[in-house]
Amino acid sequence: MAVSVGIVGATGAVGQELIRLLHERNFPFSSLKVLASGRSAGKEIRYKDETFIIEEATPESFDRMDIALFSAGATITKTLAPEAAKRGCVVVDNSSAFRMDPDVPLVVPEINPEAVRDHKGIIANPNCSTAIALMGLAPLHQAFGLKRFVACTYQAVSGSGVAGMQELENQIKAWSEGKDCPPETYPHPIAFNLFPHVDVFFDDGYTKEEHKMLNESRKIMSMPDLPATTTCVRVPVMRAHSIAIHAEFEQPVSLEAAREAIAAFSGAELCDDTANNVYPTPLQFSGKNKCGVGRIRIDSALDNGLAFFVVGDQLLKGAALNAVQIAEEVVRLQA
Amino acid sequence: MAVSVGIVGATGAVGQELIRLLHERNFPFSSLKVLASGRSAGKEIRYKDETFIIEEATPESFDRMDIALFSAGATITKTLAPEAAKRGCVVVDNSSAFRMDPDVPLVVPEINPEAVRDHKGIIANPNCSTAIALMGLAPLHQAFGLKRFVACTYQAVSGSGVAGMQELENQIKAWSEGKDCPPETYPHPIAFNLFPHVDVFFDDGYTKEEHKMLNESRKIMSMPDLPATTTCVRVPVMRAHSIAIHAEFEQPVSLEAAREAIAAFSGAELCDDTANNVYPTPLQFSGKNKCGVGRIRIDSALDNGLAFFVVGDQLLKGAALNAVQIAEEVVRLQA
Repeated sequence: MAVSVGIVGATGAVGQELIRLLHERNFPFSSLKVLASGRSAGKEIRYKDETFIIEEATPESFDRMDIALFSAGATITKTLAPEAAKRGCVVVDNSSAFRMDPDVPLVVPEINPEAVRDHKGIIANPNCSTAIALMGLAPLHQAFGLKRFVACTYQAVSGSGVAGMQELENQIKAWSEGKDCPPETYPHPIAFNLFPHVDVFFDDGYTKEEHKMLNESRKIMSMPDLPATTTCVRVPVMRAHSIAIHAEFEQPVSLEAAREAIAAFSGAELCDDTANNVYPTPLQFSGKNKCGVGRIRIDSALDNGLAFFVVGDQLLKGAALNAVQIAEEVVRLQA
Repeated sequence: MAVSVGIVGATGAVGQELIRLLHERNFPFSSLKVLASGRSAGKEIRYKDETFIIEEATPESFDRMDIALFSAGATITKTLAPEAAKRGCVVVDNSSAFRMDPDVPLVVPEINPEAVRDHKGIIANPNCSTAIALMGLAPLHQAFGLKRFVACTYQAVSGSGVAGMQELENQIKAWSEGKDCPPETYPHPIAFNLFPHVDVFFDDGYTKEEHKMLNESRKIMSMPDLPATTTCVRVPVMRAHSIAIHAEFEQPVSLEAAREAIAAFSGAELCDDTANNVYPTPLQFSGKNKCGVGRIRIDSALDNGLAFFVVGDQLLKGAALNAVQIAEEVVRLQA
């Protein structure tokens, strides 16, 4: 089956990765339309020898399109994704617009691929920190039954798109030249700094990012009442997120079984040999499809506790890769 | 009372801060000897208009010295500190050599100043992450009775001394010039990176830094059985540590009472107004004596839970300031 595919938000950091992944993974597309806002219409995007001319995304863009990969803001997505779905196009959406909608499956193909079957035209791709954290949490849940978790994140600037990466780069260069470079994208300088502030604050003192991580983890693992808490922090790292997790399980845990569960899980790479300074780091996992899981240890402060550290590329498993994997499931089901 | 004071390890990053703080806080010293290894003997250290000639630290250096502030490696400290104590000199030691020795008080003056009385010549200054985390944990413990905590750290390179700060600076400059700068101080690059590896690994999979934080917190708060767990992470920040804490308390918590407890605690600055993007960050708290505490929120995943974020200068409250505060207690008791 050859499918016609569109990318909405093709000019962004995730959009660029989508184009690359569709090619590299030999996604069976018959045509590839790249769409963006009217502002970018007419501009060119190059991938290897190919040139794509950006078209403005309108409802009619989705006529006769099979699958649309959305990586746009929540506002434009809320308007256009239903228009695409109405036209029979399956939307895989990277925004937060529909993730918690009970009619929209939220899918990580290594965890709940079966949820793809239930779509009504829109399938949501999870928040980046969530998808990456789950590459450690989900296999351990399968092994021991997750009871509660505490997660603290170390999130790369790519989570704020090209603007975030540019801001870190500009501030670092300015510092090297002894110049000043005040923040524009972020509320505070990010070079040589960090802040516990990703996305907007809610009345309960948590950020929207923190809510996403907790609620989306519960939805993806079908554990609506899972007690969980997190602090999400932006750090001066380019494109891989790290997450320190301390988790409690229903059943007794063992290091050996934990390592086996991680090693057997297709989305994870066991990266855990402290005697040789082996544990995942953001630089190592930038550009990698798999997420690294290491520093696995018995956490005796918790009941059946395990502590571990997960690192994954924010633009790949945290966004574009997971979206393409969902699209691959859609194709498999229609085959 | 005027006291003769010595600094052991005067050439290090902490040593420099000790000299500055003794002057700025008008510490009542009659003389100030600066000591270091034989390698540095004869070199000069300048503070404003004064010049100090470094002497080699030997057992005899401590004859007729009242207080010695040690900021040297554990090996040299294990030899020289007892020699100093034998000569009647009170040692305030910043290394980990004696911290868990039951005969040595481990003191944070805002928390357990009374422990200074029990010294037998040596008083230990806590690990940097511990002292900073406690600026949030201790007042909340006093308010609600701490039951358990999970802490994840974001630790600055100053924790590795001048060498760590230099390595981050060199790697950032090299990156800006498109050059390579392989790691020397750390096992991995630190620019644009981070790693869950501070100090050596133990057989249980935790690092020595993680053990320090847990064991020292228990000793300082006199809670030997406190369940607690931590992941310690080095980040590309110069000199302030951040710690995300999720804690459980014996008594019901309230946001208002938590904020009051923090605001009333002399070592902390309440820095918690998310509506205006106010929360502590490392750049803001570099060079500050107080530690910032913010992002305080009810943590419903834990029993009587609170989550919060603490930031403090690693060289000040994390090392030199706390040591000078201990020395001030010693002087007060002898007055």
